[in-house]
Amino acid sequence: MRIIIVGASGVIGKKLVAAFGKDHEVVTAGSKSGDFQVDIHSPASIEAFYKQVGSFDAVVATAGGAHFGPLTSMTDADFRVGLDSKLMGQVNLVLIGQHYINDKGSFTLTSGSVSAMPIRLGGALTPVNRAIEGFVAGAAIELERGVRINAVSPTLVEDSPQYVPFFPGVEPVSMDAVVRGYQRAVLGPQTGLTIEVW
Amino acid sequence: MRIIIVGASGVIGKKLVAAFGKDHEVVTAGSKSGDFQVDIHSPASIEAFYKQVGSFDAVVATAGGAHFGPLTSMTDADFRVGLDSKLMGQVNLVLIGQHYINDKGSFTLTSGSVSAMPIRLGGALTPVNRAIEGFVAGAAIELERGVRINAVSPTLVEDSPQYVPFFPGVEPVSMDAVVRGYQRAVLGPQTGLTIEVW
Repeated sequence: MRIIIVGASGVIGKKLVAAFGKDHEVVTAGSKSGDFQVDIHSPASIEAFYKQVGSFDAVVATAGGAHFGPLTSMTDADFRVGLDSKLMGQVNLVLIGQHYINDKGSFTLTSGSVSAMPIRLGGALTPVNRAIEGFVAGAAIELERGVRINAVSPTLVEDSPQYVPFFPGVEPVSMDAVVRGYQRAVLGPQTGLTIEVW
Repeated sequence: MRIIIVGASGVIGKKLVAAFGKDHEVVTAGSKSGDFQVDIHSPASIEAFYKQVGSFDAVVATAGGAHFGPLTSMTDADFRVGLDSKLMGQVNLVLIGQHYINDKGSFTLTSGSVSAMPIRLGGALTPVNRAIEGFVAGAAIELERGVRINAVSPTLVEDSPQYVPFFPGVEPVSMDAVVRGYQRAVLGPQTGLTIEVW
C-alpha cells in the first residue's frame, strides 16, 4: 500500500511514518519538510501536490492548528484560524483527493478528545474537532469507488508533556496507542468512524 | 425577560416570536425585516446591532445557511458557505454578544439533526451543525456572569415539507415540539447542552 502522511514531521506524524513504513511505502508531506511540500491552507497547493505525488491508497492527515485562548477575548479572526487550518486543510485534502485516490483507498483525519471533553481556553478547538468528525460521518456515505474515511481522536499524548496543565486529571496516552488508532483506520474495514484514543 | 430572536421571519423564527411573545418582550431581528436589521455575516454589523438594541436577557439564533450538494463536486468555496453563514454568524452573535448580554442571560443557537444523522448531499451540513454544538459545549464552561448557552437541534419540521425527500423515513416534528425545545433552552437552567427535537 502507498500511504501519504501529511504532517509527517509532527509529534504523531513521525511515529506513523515509522510504524506504517515497516510494511508499506510511505510518502511524507509537510509544509516545509518531507518528500513533498504542500500548504494545506491552499486548495491550489493541494491540487498541485496530488497531481505530482502519483498513485496512492491512503492519506493520513495529522496537520493543522487552531486558536487556543480565552472565550472572553476571542474574535472572529481567532476562531477562523482553526477553520482555515485544521478544518479546511483536512477537508480539502479529501474534497480534492477523492478525485486522485485509488479505488478502495482511505482518508484518515485527525480530530482530538477536546471534541468530546471541552477544556478551558478551548472554545475554538471543540467546534473544529467536532466539524472534522462530522465531515467524516457525512462524507462516508457519499465517497465513491469504495473509498473510506475515518477520524482518529487522540487525547493528550505522552510526547506532548507541555499540554499536561490544560488537561487536569487526564492520563496521557502512549504513542503506541495513538499509532494503533491510525492503523485501525487505514488497515481496517470501517468508514465514517471517529476512533477515540483515550 | 427581553428576548432577541435573530432570524425572526423564518419558519422556526416566526413560531418563536409568537410563543415567547405571550410572556416576554420579543425583539425581532433579520437580514431584511424585523425591529432591527443585522447581517450575521459581518462582525461589524453584529457589533452595531448590539450597541443599538439596548439591554437584553436572551438571544435566540435561527438564522444562517449552508451548502447542500454532492460531495463528488464539492469545493472549498461550497464548504465555506456554511462556515461563513450558519457557523460564524451564530458564533459571532455569541463572541460579541457576551459583552452586551445581561447577567444570567442566555444564548440559544440552532444546529439540526443532520449533525447526528447525516443525509445524502449533506457533506457540508453535518460538520457545520456539529461545530455549532461543539461551540456551545466549549463556550459554556467559559461564559461569565452566569450566562448560559445551548443549542436546539431540530430534525425535519412539519412546516418545511419541501425537505421530506431528503429525509427518508424521518417523521417530521411538530412546530410545537420545536418551540418547546427553545423554551427549554431559554427558560430552563441548563448550559452547554444540545437539545434534540426528534
